[in-house]
Amino acid sequence: MPLAPPTTLPAWAALNALAARMQGPEHHLRRLLEAPGRLEAFSAAGGGLFYDYSRQRVIPAVMDALFELAAQRDLKGAFQRMVSGDIVNTTEGRAALHTAARRLDGTPVYVNGRNVMPEIRAVREQIREFAAAVHAGRITGSTGKPFRDIVVVGIGGSYLGAAFAAHALAEDALPGMRLHFLANVDIHNFGRVAAAIDPEATLWVVISKSYTTTETMANALQAEHFMRQKGLDPVRHTVTVTAKGSPGDDPARPVLAAFHMFDFIGGRYSVTSAVGGVPLSLYLGYERFEELLRGAEEMDRHALEAPVEENLPLLAALLTVWNTNFLDYPALGIIPYAEPLAKLPAHVQQLNMESNGKSVDREGCPLAVPAGPIIFGEPGTCAQHSFFQLAHQGRPFPIEFIGVVRPRYSQEGARSKAVTNHQELWANLVAQSRALAVGKPEASPERRFEGNRPSSTLLMEDLGPRSVGRLLSFYEARTVFEAFVWGINPFDQFGVELGKTMASGLRRALADQNAGRALPDDLDPIARFYLQTLAAGGWD
Amino acid sequence: MPLAPPTTLPAWAALNALAARMQGPEHHLRRLLEAPGRLEAFSAAGGGLFYDYSRQRVIPAVMDALFELAAQRDLKGAFQRMVSGDIVNTTEGRAALHTAARRLDGTPVYVNGRNVMPEIRAVREQIREFAAAVHAGRITGSTGKPFRDIVVVGIGGSYLGAAFAAHALAEDALPGMRLHFLANVDIHNFGRVAAAIDPEATLWVVISKSYTTTETMANALQAEHFMRQKGLDPVRHTVTVTAKGSPGDDPARPVLAAFHMFDFIGGRYSVTSAVGGVPLSLYLGYERFEELLRGAEEMDRHALEAPVEENLPLLAALLTVWNTNFLDYPALGIIPYAEPLAKLPAHVQQLNMESNGKSVDREGCPLAVPAGPIIFGEPGTCAQHSFFQLAHQGRPFPIEFIGVVRPRYSQEGARSKAVTNHQELWANLVAQSRALAVGKPEASPERRFEGNRPSSTLLMEDLGPRSVGRLLSFYEARTVFEAFVWGINPFDQFGVELGKTMASGLRRALADQNAGRALPDDLDPIARFYLQTLAAGGWD
Repeated sequence: MPLAPPTTLPAWAALNALAARMQGPEHHLRRLLEAPGRLEAFSAAGGGLFYDYSRQRVIPAVMDALFELAAQRDLKGAFQRMVSGDIVNTTEGRAALHTAARRLDGTPVYVNGRNVMPEIRAVREQIREFAAAVHAGRITGSTGKPFRDIVVVGIGGSYLGAAFAAHALAEDALPGMRLHFLANVDIHNFGRVAAAIDPEATLWVVISKSYTTTETMANALQAEHFMRQKGLDPVRHTVTVTAKGSPGDDPARPVLAAFHMFDFIGGRYSVTSAVGGVPLSLYLGYERFEELLRGAEEMDRHALEAPVEENLPLLAALLTVWNTNFLDYPALGIIPYAEPLAKLPAHVQQLNMESNGKSVDREGCPLAVPAGPIIFGEPGTCAQHSFFQLAHQGRPFPIEFIGVVRPRYSQEGARSKAVTNHQELWANLVAQSRALAVGKPEASPERRFEGNRPSSTLLMEDLGPRSVGRLLSFYEARTVFEAFVWGINPFDQFGVELGKTMASGLRRALADQNAGRALPDDLDPIARFYLQTLAAGGWD
Repeated sequence: MPLAPPTTLPAWAALNALAARMQGPEHHLRRLLEAPGRLEAFSAAGGGLFYDYSRQRVIPAVMDALFELAAQRDLKGAFQRMVSGDIVNTTEGRAALHTAARRLDGTPVYVNGRNVMPEIRAVREQIREFAAAVHAGRITGSTGKPFRDIVVVGIGGSYLGAAFAAHALAEDALPGMRLHFLANVDIHNFGRVAAAIDPEATLWVVISKSYTTTETMANALQAEHFMRQKGLDPVRHTVTVTAKGSPGDDPARPVLAAFHMFDFIGGRYSVTSAVGGVPLSLYLGYERFEELLRGAEEMDRHALEAPVEENLPLLAALLTVWNTNFLDYPALGIIPYAEPLAKLPAHVQQLNMESNGKSVDREGCPLAVPAGPIIFGEPGTCAQHSFFQLAHQGRPFPIEFIGVVRPRYSQEGARSKAVTNHQELWANLVAQSRALAVGKPEASPERRFEGNRPSSTLLMEDLGPRSVGRLLSFYEARTVFEAFVWGINPFDQFGVELGKTMASGLRRALADQNAGRALPDDLDPIARFYLQTLAAGGWD
C-alpha cells in the first residue's frame, strides 16, 4: 500500500495550527519554563540514557499532536518491520538490519526466509579470534614484528563510525596499539599516515563493500606500493572487510583474512558490523567491542518496546520534524560536553544527512516539505567560544546538548574557583540551554538576548563502551524514525552518483593527458581550465 | 554619521528585483553555464589566490548591482579605515588592527595618535629570539631537557587559528617538535594531553588576553598541579601570551617569558599576532611563521588596493550577502579538497559566525535581514561520502570549494585507474561543482538531480606557509567586508556573555555543594535536577 505524504495526515494540520499559536509571546520559552513540573513532563529515561526536551518549544498539545502523528504514521510498526528483516530499502530491494549486527541472544532474524544470525555470529567469532591472535603475537607482519599500527583504509560509512568510537574510547586502547584512518584520496592523507606508522608493525584494514570504491582502491594501491618499497609482503599485512565474493574476497588475491559485510547493512549504519568490529577489536580488544554491541542492543530494544511517550529516539525524531517542518529551523547543532565525543557530530552528520537529505518519498513523489536538517557541531565548552555568538544573538537553530555524568579522570586536588574541571564543564552545559531559552531582553542592544532558542539535553552515565553503543543506536533509531515520518527511504543514497559519474569522465581525460593525448574536444570550458591549471602547476 | 541600514540603499532594491528574476528557469545554472566566457567573466586572481564564482547564481546585472552596493556602502573606504587604525570596534572603543600584525615594511600605523608598529615589531623579535633559544637548547625545562612538546592552553580565538595553521603545515614541523592544544575545560582534554607528552620536555603556552578566561585558568592550574606532581618547576615550563599588565604578565608570578597581545587585535583575528606566532614559531621555526605573515600581508594589500570587480575577499563577501539575503540560503559549506586544510572550517566557523552572528547593527537597531550564515564543512572527498547526498538532493546550500594545485607529496609509480591520487582528487573537485550546478533532471525520481546549487572554487598554489597566510587573510577580509555591508560590528561578541554569567551562578552553587552547603533555594528546578544528578552520579 503506498504511503500517503505526511502532510495529508490529520495530525499534520493540527501541528500547523499549533505552530502558529507557538509564535505568541505567551509561548516564549521563558514563559513555558515557569510552569511547575516542566522537566518531569518533558523528559524521559530509557535504554541507558536520559533525554530532556523541556527547553524545546513545545507544550502538551504539541506533544499530543506529535504522538498522534507517530500513531497515524505507525512509526513503531515501521521500526518493528525494519528489525524483523522486511525489505524496507525499497529502491535497492534490501532489508536494513544493522540491529541484527548487535543481537547477542539466540533469536533468529529472517531475510527472504533465511535466518541471517548464523553468518553474523560467524563473522563476530572470526573477529574475536583474529584480534586475539594479533594481540597474542600469533599473527604478525612479514618480518615477524607484532602489529601495533592499524590503518583503516575506507571512506564515508566505512570509517566515520569507527573513528568516532575509537576517539571516544581512547582510554580503553590496548597498550601500544594505535589506530589510523586513511579515508581521503588526497595524497596528503596517505603521506601523513605513512609518516606516522612503523611499516613492519602495520596492519592495513581495507573496508569497502563492493571493493571498487575509487578512493579506497587508490589508497589500498598506495599502501601496497609502500609495503613493497619497504620490502614487506602486502599479503601478510592486509585484511579486508567486504562483501562475500567481491574482488577483496577473492582467493586469487590472498590477504590475511577477509571479513564479510552484508547487503542488509548500509555503510552509515555499519559501525556495529565488521566495519567497526575489526578496527575496534584490534584497537580495544574484542570484549570492549562486544560491550559496545551490548549498549546498542539495549537501545534497540528500548526503541522497539518503549511506548511513544517514553521512547527516546522516537521523541527526538518527532522533535526534529517539529523543528524542521513547523518551526522552520534549517539546521541542528550537536554539542557534546565531552571532548572524547568530538567526532560524534561528523558521524551523525553522515548518518543523518545522507539518510534524510532527500527530496522524494518512497513512492518517488517530490516531498511537500523539506526533510533532514543540516547537522554540525563541536564539543562544548569550545563551541561556546566559537559559534555560540551566532547561536545566542544571530539566526536561531536548535541544539542538542550531550552531558556525561561520570568522567574517566578523577581530579581531586586541582580545583579552580572551588570546583573541579568536570563541575565547571557541567555548569556550562546547564547554563547554556537555559541562557538560550530565557534570554535577557532588558539590556542595551548589543547585550540583548531574545531567547526562545530551543535545545534538548541527552545525558550519558559515563564514557564506557556500553554507553557509546547506546549513543550510536540512539542516533541510528532517531534517524530512521524521522525518515518514517517523512516517508522517505533512509537507506539509499543515489544523490552521490552524479558527482561520481562526472568525476569518472574527468579522470579519463586526465589519464589521456598522462598518456600524452589531448583533452577531449567536448570537455566543458571550465573543466578544461581546471585540468590545464593542474597540468601547468598554476593558473597564470 | 550613523550608517543607514543596507536595506534602504537603492542597490538593495535592485537586488531584490533581480533575485525574483533569478528564480526563472532561464536563470537555472545549467543555462547560465552555457554562455561562452562564463569562467572568464566570473572569476578573478589576486593576492596569490584564484577565485571562481562562475557556478554562483549570478548574471552580469546581479554583479553590477552588488558592485553598486559595495560603492553605496563604501566597503573599500571602510576597510581602509580599519587598516588605518580607526576605532571601528565602536561598542568597545577599539581599533581592529590584525592587518598591522603582519605588516613587514616600515610604515607606521597610528591608534589614537600613537604608532603601534614598534611594539608589534618588538613582540615579533621577542618570539624569534625565544624560539631560536628553545630550538638551540639554550632554554630548557627545569631538568635540563630540551623542549619537544608544546602545549597551547587557550580556547576559542586563542587556539583555533593556530590549530588550523599547524595542521596545515605539519610537514614543515621542526624534527621532533610536537604541538598539542588544551582548549576544553573538560578534564578528558587535560587527561589525554597529559598522557601524550613528556612532562620534562613540555613547554606550556598559556594564552588569554585578560588572563581570566575560566577554561584557560582551570587548565593552567591543572598543568601547574601536574608539573609539581612530576617534580618540575612550573616557572621554567610556562610562557604566557597575554595583555600587558594582566595577571599573566605580573612579575610576582614569574614565567619563562610573557608575550604581549594588544587590545586592537581580537581573538578570532589573532593568528598572525603572538597568539599564533608563539606556538607556530616553536613548532615550525620563526622563519616559516614570517612566511605566513608575508602571505597574509600580500592578501591584505590585495583587499585594500584591488578594484571591487577584482577584489577576491570583497567578491566573496558580496556573494555571501547575495546568497544569504536574496537567495535565502541559511548556511555555507566550506569544503577544502586538501586534508591538511581539515581544520579550516572550524577556524572560519569561529571567525565568521562569531563576527557576523549578530542581530543589531552598529547603531543598536535590530537588523531588517539576517546576517551571517551557519558555516560548516569537512574535507573533500570525505564530504562527498558524508553529507553530499543532502547537498545534491536535499535542502540546497552554497558551497565554497578549495583546491590546491601542487601537492607536497609526489607519487610517481602508484597510479590507480591511470591517474595519481592528486589527479583523482582534482577530478572530484571539478566534478562536484558542475554536478551541483547542472544536475540531471531526466531520470527516475530517486536518481533525479534538480541542480541549480551554487558554489565557488578558491584555488591555492600549494600548501606552504605563504599560501596558508593568504588564505587566513582572505577569510578575515571577507568576514569584515560582509559585516560592513550589514552595518554590524564584527569585532565584539556580547552574545557569549549571558551563558558565562549563568554558568558562574551554577559554579557558585557547585562550590557551595563542595563545601557541604545546600544548593540555593532560588535555583531553578531544572538546574537543581542537573546538579543533583552530577552529585549523585546518575539520574535515578
